[in-house]
Amino acid sequence: MKHSFGSDNHSGVHPQILDAIIRTNSEFAVAYGDDEYSQQVLSQIENMLGGECKAMFAVNGTGANILSLANLAHSSDAILCPATAHINCDECGAPEKIIGCKVIPVEHTNGKVSVESVKKHLHGFGEQHHSQPNVLSISQPTELGTLYTVEEIKALADLMHTHNGYLHIDGSRVSNAAAALDIPIKEFTADAGADALSFGGTKNGLLMGEVVVLFKRVSAHRALFLRKQMTQLYSKARFMAAQFDEYLKDDLYLKLASHSNEMAKYLETRLKEITQIEISRPVETNAVFAYISRELYDKLSEKHMFYIWDEETMEVRWMCSFETGKENIDEFIEDIKNNL
Amino acid sequence: MKHSFGSDNHSGVHPQILDAIIRTNSEFAVAYGDDEYSQQVLSQIENMLGGECKAMFAVNGTGANILSLANLAHSSDAILCPATAHINCDECGAPEKIIGCKVIPVEHTNGKVSVESVKKHLHGFGEQHHSQPNVLSISQPTELGTLYTVEEIKALADLMHTHNGYLHIDGSRVSNAAAALDIPIKEFTADAGADALSFGGTKNGLLMGEVVVLFKRVSAHRALFLRKQMTQLYSKARFMAAQFDEYLKDDLYLKLASHSNEMAKYLETRLKEITQIEISRPVETNAVFAYISRELYDKLSEKHMFYIWDEETMEVRWMCSFETGKENIDEFIEDIKNNL
Amino acid sequence: MKHSFGSDNHSGVHPQILDAIIRTNSEFAVAYGDDEYSQQVLSQIENMLGGECKAMFAVNGTGANILSLANLAHSSDAILCPATAHINCDECGAPEKIIGCKVIPVEHTNGKVSVESVKKHLHGFGEQHHSQPNVLSISQPTELGTLYTVEEIKALADLMHTHNGYLHIDGSRVSNAAAALDIPIKEFTADAGADALSFGGTKNGLLMGEVVVLFKRVSAHRALFLRKQMTQLYSKARFMAAQFDEYLKDDLYLKLASHSNEMAKYLETRLKEITQIEISRPVETNAVFAYISRELYDKLSEKHMFYIWDEETMEVRWMCSFETGKENIDEFIEDIKNNL
Amino acid sequence: MKHSFGSDNHSGVHPQILDAIIRTNSEFAVAYGDDEYSQQVLSQIENMLGGECKAMFAVNGTGANILSLANLAHSSDAILCPATAHINCDECGAPEKIIGCKVIPVEHTNGKVSVESVKKHLHGFGEQHHSQPNVLSISQPTELGTLYTVEEIKALADLMHTHNGYLHIDGSRVSNAAAALDIPIKEFTADAGADALSFGGTKNGLLMGEVVVLFKRVSAHRALFLRKQMTQLYSKARFMAAQFDEYLKDDLYLKLASHSNEMAKYLETRLKEITQIEISRPVETNAVFAYISRELYDKLSEKHMFYIWDEETMEVRWMCSFETGKENIDEFIEDIKNNL
Repeated sequence: MKHSFGSDNHSGVHPQILDAIIRTNSEFAVAYGDDEYSQQVLSQIENMLGGECKAMFAVNGTGANILSLANLAHSSDAILCPATAHINCDECGAPEKIIGCKVIPVEHTNGKVSVESVKKHLHGFGEQHHSQPNVLSISQPTELGTLYTVEEIKALADLMHTHNGYLHIDGSRVSNAAAALDIPIKEFTADAGADALSFGGTKNGLLMGEVVVLFKRVSAHRALFLRKQMTQLYSKARFMAAQFDEYLKDDLYLKLASHSNEMAKYLETRLKEITQIEISRPVETNAVFAYISRELYDKLSEKHMFYIWDEETMEVRWMCSFETGKENIDEFIEDIKNNL
Repeated sequence: MKHSFGSDNHSGVHPQILDAIIRTNSEFAVAYGDDEYSQQVLSQIENMLGGECKAMFAVNGTGANILSLANLAHSSDAILCPATAHINCDECGAPEKIIGCKVIPVEHTNGKVSVESVKKHLHGFGEQHHSQPNVLSISQPTELGTLYTVEEIKALADLMHTHNGYLHIDGSRVSNAAAALDIPIKEFTADAGADALSFGGTKNGLLMGEVVVLFKRVSAHRALFLRKQMTQLYSKARFMAAQFDEYLKDDLYLKLASHSNEMAKYLETRLKEITQIEISRPVETNAVFAYISRELYDKLSEKHMFYIWDEETMEVRWMCSFETGKENIDEFIEDIKNNL
Repeated sequence: MKHSFGSDNHSGVHPQILDAIIRTNSEFAVAYGDDEYSQQVLSQIENMLGGECKAMFAVNGTGANILSLANLAHSSDAILCPATAHINCDECGAPEKIIGCKVIPVEHTNGKVSVESVKKHLHGFGEQHHSQPNVLSISQPTELGTLYTVEEIKALADLMHTHNGYLHIDGSRVSNAAAALDIPIKEFTADAGADALSFGGTKNGLLMGEVVVLFKRVSAHRALFLRKQMTQLYSKARFMAAQFDEYLKDDLYLKLASHSNEMAKYLETRLKEITQIEISRPVETNAVFAYISRELYDKLSEKHMFYIWDEETMEVRWMCSFETGKENIDEFIEDIKNNL
Repeated sequence: MKHSFGSDNHSGVHPQILDAIIRTNSEFAVAYGDDEYSQQVLSQIENMLGGECKAMFAVNGTGANILSLANLAHSSDAILCPATAHINCDECGAPEKIIGCKVIPVEHTNGKVSVESVKKHLHGFGEQHHSQPNVLSISQPTELGTLYTVEEIKALADLMHTHNGYLHIDGSRVSNAAAALDIPIKEFTADAGADALSFGGTKNGLLMGEVVVLFKRVSAHRALFLRKQMTQLYSKARFMAAQFDEYLKDDLYLKLASHSNEMAKYLETRLKEITQIEISRPVETNAVFAYISRELYDKLSEKHMFYIWDEETMEVRWMCSFETGKENIDEFIEDIKNNL
């Protein structure tokens, strides 16, 4: 497939990342992250996020989320999240299975929850019949491509901390957020009061690999055992270290994310030429959502890969990746115009 | 680290495998295994194993085992396995956590259970107080490097089937077994009556990747959901397909495994020169076990990486990998001799 | 406490039930339900429900629900239920913990879901990322005291069966439903297509005890193991049998439920004398819901026990039980009038 | 059935216990243990055990054990216990399912583990591949009717505490232990360093009911939520309170247990008249174990109820209960003699 707007994980691996893997393939190394290189790269990530935290590798996005959350939530807790959250919609009930807890969808606007909408679920504390709403999980950027401001995250973190709860950030596209906000990841995670972060890589040019970061309020003393037990421990960890080493070096992660974001902006601009298409969400990172006709969808999908987000409203999603080029967008716009 | 006898996963990635990944990195592809290439490689594996089975990728060895077993065992079942089994000793309770079932260690000889030792645990069927012993999991080769004959596996499969149970084979090193027995994997799995196989790759030259195979007696209709829910679904699946494609092409998997096995044989031969060292297990694949003195261990481990298997008896394990060379062994033998 | 509108389980045990326990206490009996008496009473319940089913005792209401559902749902399934469902609100996440599945709240009217509201959640079948919406759980009567008609239940059962799914009925107050509808329980459960029923007793005069009934579409072959494993197996089962024997004899269960229902009707009638109180839900069984002022609540709760259902709207719930008398209601109405 | 040696839970309910239930059935009461009476009885139990503990009701023995252990062990922990332990053999994998942890059988003598046998399993601390052996669960008396001395329990508690672990005591027959040792329960639980106790009642004359006690080292802050989530919360708690109130009053629990113990002693004495029967375990509480011929078993079991403990060795178990009388034993001995 020449190009796909289906998801940013339809893209491949950035060549520098592959080179890093190859370079690392010269020697033997202790497995399971006990090698120096893995330790060093994890330290680097911890430092980048302020130092007061514990970082560990996870194999995939669902794994990173569940491992993060398993360190925050107990089975008798409830995890609050926007109804659109990946953990709520797209992980086949992994939080319920692995943590044993309740997941409660919270009302949202464009994928973002507010202090008000979360507050409505912060009750029943101490009542034995009720799952305790001790964890809030938000995505930055959201599944709808939108962004929380630092202040909004701070307010949500404060709210949860007031109730002795925790804030988790699903950052499977966290680099896109950092690039779009033009501030370090640290500012809207550690500094904003987040308690755990799923730091994604696979959707932005890695072969595979995510990092779980537990911040200072969270005890990490069971984290490695939980990781193993939930099948998220990778043996040849140095190859994950190599990818993150390269990813962070010279801000490659930001460059790739900036490019994706810019492509989404460009797609948005070009789509505005077409009056029959209504952009449905603010374009703030690398996703463009719009309403189109079923007819147009059918025609376009003969040639282009993308998904219907909502069958009822015919809202569709176009994701741009680090490999999306202007020419892919121009061709797509052309095809839209020809099919109207 | 120049070389390690610590584990076969201390080795790196075979260059052909890396090349295959690079070649696959030229286009976009649908994620999560819905791409044609992944489907094609899985079909190839299914055909190689007789056709009457369902193959799916898993991310790592623990994941492959648990996913295999989750399709065979329910929470109220017991999984029988040799006391040495990886699922019993080295997965931090993953079967108990993910499947919710009991794991019962069975007496073994050199890592192998017998019909007699298994039979002792086949009771309590239908009694509501007792976990139902419906699944037997064996490793081929075993964690002690030994092999079951086809007849032995058949007998164990028959035994389990007689009780409407299942046989799972942990084949994290299944290629070493095939190479050593000099028969196709199919003969001692599908044809011998196995119901599920964890077909390993990572320990024999892959970057990462395992395959779960469910044979004809087993319903696979929940398998993909369980895989996702236990966090074993990899998004950029084509890169796993590429590895297995290359791995199976021209029997690369057998060549690499044969080499590891030969190196273990060579190590065994050389060790026999040294009367102070007692080989403790039959050397049948790529592992050599021996009793050595604590003193010798301390000296050797300054320069060589390997693990103590049993602190009490000072049994140690030396694993040979596809990257182990005769020169590594010769140097090691030399160092032993110099330290006696 | 002389009387409580707090819940029907604030009432005690009906004297006939206690007598039955005492009568049964004359001999030794095999434990865990293997005694003849338990088997006989369970057969009687099976026959009462049409014969094509399997009945078993459970210890409490949450246990009965979870055991019912554990036989219908797998961890990768989703259980749909009205947002008000006991399994969603009041069981501290027991379904998620014990079954490992997702629980999805469905829009409801007065505690009842409709074919339309359920249909909105019947999608994603076969997609590995999505919990499979294979089970619908409704309460009859609902947590808001309302009733489904036989036709409504049939329609919901048909809908679920069309998708190869199941319908569970939480009948913790099923006797109140039967009494109010004036039809046998069988007609709105087995005959209407229900696949599992939690047949409650504790809230209608039993000391403790519920029955799980699995109907013909459901395999019960793991049910007893699951019951033990989830800690719902009671040793001295004959005393549970004795209670249900007495409960069903001469329709005691219907008599007690009819009385509770009538008391609720009487309470409703008397409340209508008071214009400042707005009945908020149709009074169809033994619950009366109304909006009152916080001021009135504070005054009344000095003397009367009842719970606020919704803190925001100041909706309160008054439950009538088999022990509620007209005099309790008259006194309560008097106190309301004196406090307005 | 006139009498049963099958189990002490084949007996009925002590008349005083039933009377207490009846006396309590005079009023309404808040449910789920929020009533004053329940609180008062639990306080009484806490005081009886030294005050520095938290007591809560559980519905049955398996529930009491799992709730106790769920407060001590996390999913990545291992629970060590004698191979004969109820939690290992007779709870259908409830610890694995509900806690998600590993259960490791430890070598024992007559049901008792020693510091030495436990020590062999206290390794792998801090290694992410290994379930952490943080909890030891023993039964007092054991499933074989034997007793730990206070010193033995202290030594085991000390051993576990040295490793920051915990000691749980399954006291489903703890009253029999107290009666036999002739010391208060407190002395061999709280004072000996136990961290949790399952304080049984059902096997010694209660209708149903157990108490979970968490001692000072253990945080109880999630205990009530866990109890609800694992389906162990009983609604009409006052009737459990009534039973324990009566049970503890004037040492009824000790009187009943002493009687059972004495009957076992009497049975042992009488059995010694018969040379063909070999008592197989020290008779220290209310259980008598012996080897008999299959022929004798077949004949006796036509008229008497008891279970084979070990099919291979034809070891049988005879349990005496608070309702066992000398006449039952004399008749049994007579029948043995007539059948030799």
